[in-house]
Amino acid sequence: MYPKTIQKLIELFSKFPTVGPRTAARFVFYLLRVSKKEREGLTSVISNLKNVNFCSFCFKTFESSEAKGEENLCKVCQDASRDRTLLCLVEKETDLISIEKTKKYPGLYFILGGTVSKLKKEDIKKLRLEELEERIKNPKKFGLLDTNFKEIILAFNPTVEGEATMFYLERILKKLGKKITRLGRGLPIGGELEYADEETLSSALESRR
Amino acid sequence: MYPKTIQKLIELFSKFPTVGPRTAARFVFYLLRVSKKEREGLTSVISNLKNVNFCSFCFKTFESSEAKGEENLCKVCQDASRDRTLLCLVEKETDLISIEKTKKYPGLYFILGGTVSKLKKEDIKKLRLEELEERIKNPKKFGLLDTNFKEIILAFNPTVEGEATMFYLERILKKLGKKITRLGRGLPIGGELEYADEETLSSALESRR
Amino acid sequence: MYPKTIQKLIELFSKFPTVGPRTAARFVFYLLRVSKKEREGLTSVISNLKNVNFCSFCFKTFESSEAKGEENLCKVCQDASRDRTLLCLVEKETDLISIEKTKKYPGLYFILGGTVSKLKKEDIKKLRLEELEERIKNPKKFGLLDTNFKEIILAFNPTVEGEATMFYLERILKKLGKKITRLGRGLPIGGELEYADEETLSSALESRR
Amino acid sequence: MYPKTIQKLIELFSKFPTVGPRTAARFVFYLLRVSKKEREGLTSVISNLKNVNFCSFCFKTFESSEAKGEENLCKVCQDASRDRTLLCLVEKETDLISIEKTKKYPGLYFILGGTVSKLKKEDIKKLRLEELEERIKNPKKFGLLDTNFKEIILAFNPTVEGEATMFYLERILKKLGKKITRLGRGLPIGGELEYADEETLSSALESRR
Repeated sequence: MYPKTIQKLIELFSKFPTVGPRTAARFVFYLLRVSKKEREGLTSVISNLKNVNFCSFCFKTFESSEAKGEENLCKVCQDASRDRTLLCLVEKETDLISIEKTKKYPGLYFILGGTVSKLKKEDIKKLRLEELEERIKNPKKFGLLDTNFKEIILAFNPTVEGEATMFYLERILKKLGKKITRLGRGLPIGGELEYADEETLSSALESRR
Repeated sequence: MYPKTIQKLIELFSKFPTVGPRTAARFVFYLLRVSKKEREGLTSVISNLKNVNFCSFCFKTFESSEAKGEENLCKVCQDASRDRTLLCLVEKETDLISIEKTKKYPGLYFILGGTVSKLKKEDIKKLRLEELEERIKNPKKFGLLDTNFKEIILAFNPTVEGEATMFYLERILKKLGKKITRLGRGLPIGGELEYADEETLSSALESRR
Repeated sequence: MYPKTIQKLIELFSKFPTVGPRTAARFVFYLLRVSKKEREGLTSVISNLKNVNFCSFCFKTFESSEAKGEENLCKVCQDASRDRTLLCLVEKETDLISIEKTKKYPGLYFILGGTVSKLKKEDIKKLRLEELEERIKNPKKFGLLDTNFKEIILAFNPTVEGEATMFYLERILKKLGKKITRLGRGLPIGGELEYADEETLSSALESRR
Repeated sequence: MYPKTIQKLIELFSKFPTVGPRTAARFVFYLLRVSKKEREGLTSVISNLKNVNFCSFCFKTFESSEAKGEENLCKVCQDASRDRTLLCLVEKETDLISIEKTKKYPGLYFILGGTVSKLKKEDIKKLRLEELEERIKNPKKFGLLDTNFKEIILAFNPTVEGEATMFYLERILKKLGKKITRLGRGLPIGGELEYADEETLSSALESRR
């Protein structure tokens, strides 16, 4: 019953993650309320996404204009002052950004591109597992000089999917002979001892300071 | 730390209703994953919103191509078979669509464009109150022939804002000498008698069938 | 690791509806904090539950001391001024109390004692179905004089369980030749048109006033 | 409208933590459904709470029958194999039990009996602060021989109240010249990096293993 342009746009927004048809409709009516100029601003930035590239080592995004010479490395991978013995594996770029914001991690990253929940073959195929092995074995080939990883940090969410993924990664990375670590467990802001599992509490006790 | 195109798009999506920076980031990475063609499809439909007009009587949207002759009326207002003695006031177009879907309402609509929570002057000014009075008094002027409203239905949400708006509308519409009604209260799907307020239960008892 | 008295009491409270072991532990520590006298007050009232009887007609509770003559009728059933052509079926006593609080229902009640979700035989057996039929057919036998039900109101929650129960009751009550009604649907306090199902909105429109 | 015994019991259960009148009513109807014998079992165990004592050192509960000689010490404090250089401060006994379940903590405890949210004098007075200082300074006086605390662990929830309490405790314990530590932060089961605060992520990175 909506005009067909609105109906079509509701459909397209409904494909966005977390968006259902009701929220999609709210998005459309929001865009109808703002000025034509604001809508043009939005479509112009969406078009500019074609200038966003993926780092040839870690798969983080970077703007074409940020590229240096012929290399296709993001700023983190370009930065010679980072500790090139540490590699932190994350599910997605937003997790990398969260860790960067702490300013406590000096090493490099690799974005796996997803997680697996039940170790199904088709899910595992979607992860960048071959790319990961190649980069750990031969970082030079991907533009990283003077790099020799000694520790691989599995920085995945302590959810069912994250745990399954770490379990799988441990198995396949073990043969590369690197130290493999996981993030420490503990109570988060707002958490309560009463509801914490034993592993979380044990980790919180051991990492007390 | 995101490239500036991504950062800019996160900002623009964060202005969308219900969207915070985290969800906005997920939208951007979704758009980076889909093909360039799909992104072009989206920007093209957003541009087409310029062809969407608002009905000169009820303020519902309609496509330019749906317009009939020189009139700027939506399909509901154009439809001569609708009961032109009934006018249903709603907050927004999605509420109108919800009522249309029941196929039980034969009359016309008017979209007020919002609600007021505390009867503040600045909030009240944003509502289409003058437009409403004009259209009730002289529907012909806005393209609606043979129209004489006998009942005004206040179809607002039974929330604090909706109730305040209906309270205010009753006061200003009373002087027009029309019958004013509100939607019946009752238990919704999944509701429980134990948690229902007395007015809801009374209404549910009276409207039993 | 708790002393055994505490452990035992946690177990007993964990059997209470909605109570898990953590809440049960909080109950025990609450009781350890209050005075011995307060604990004695609680155990004394719990013991007094032996004086609570169930109405021989509707199964509502009543205190032994409220009984009149030899009859075992609750106050509602004793009240000769109630409309004895109306019978309202409810799941449990708290629903009866909710309806009584509206002061809009003049008739009698019957507490079915539960609901069925999937029309399983063992669930159906737990309901007071034979008792219901007997009381509709021959209310005099259970102490209600001058009683002839004309309408049976099915006042169950519009949940999956409530709907299944009403569906089943309609089937078995149809043969008794009484008018059978259900509570009207509508929007509850805080509800939104946008999220209402079509039946709810239709009912809200029809019962407008 | 409930019989007065039921009404009275609803009132008493409504005083239980987390219990409102609706849940209290459900408790009463649960007790009406179980046998008289089961109700007597419950009242008997509630009466037995008079045999539960509080440890003279740490304030944990213990059964009179568990007491050894003339001392009023709980099993943890009686246990000579525990590490008497470590003292873990907790808000309440359930937190102590949570830590004991990990089997990773070898030291002693002290139950503070609450938390403070805004460092109000009246809230602070309710905590066992004097008792705490006395026990740290002179554990022998309270039955603990060969005890000399070197580290005080503040094991409070990382909530607003817990943080305020730890802040206050640090200030007053500093003058006793003991090492003071807090539990490590980290991601809990089900947590996500994307939503973790920087301190939590930093702690999780540092305590990786």
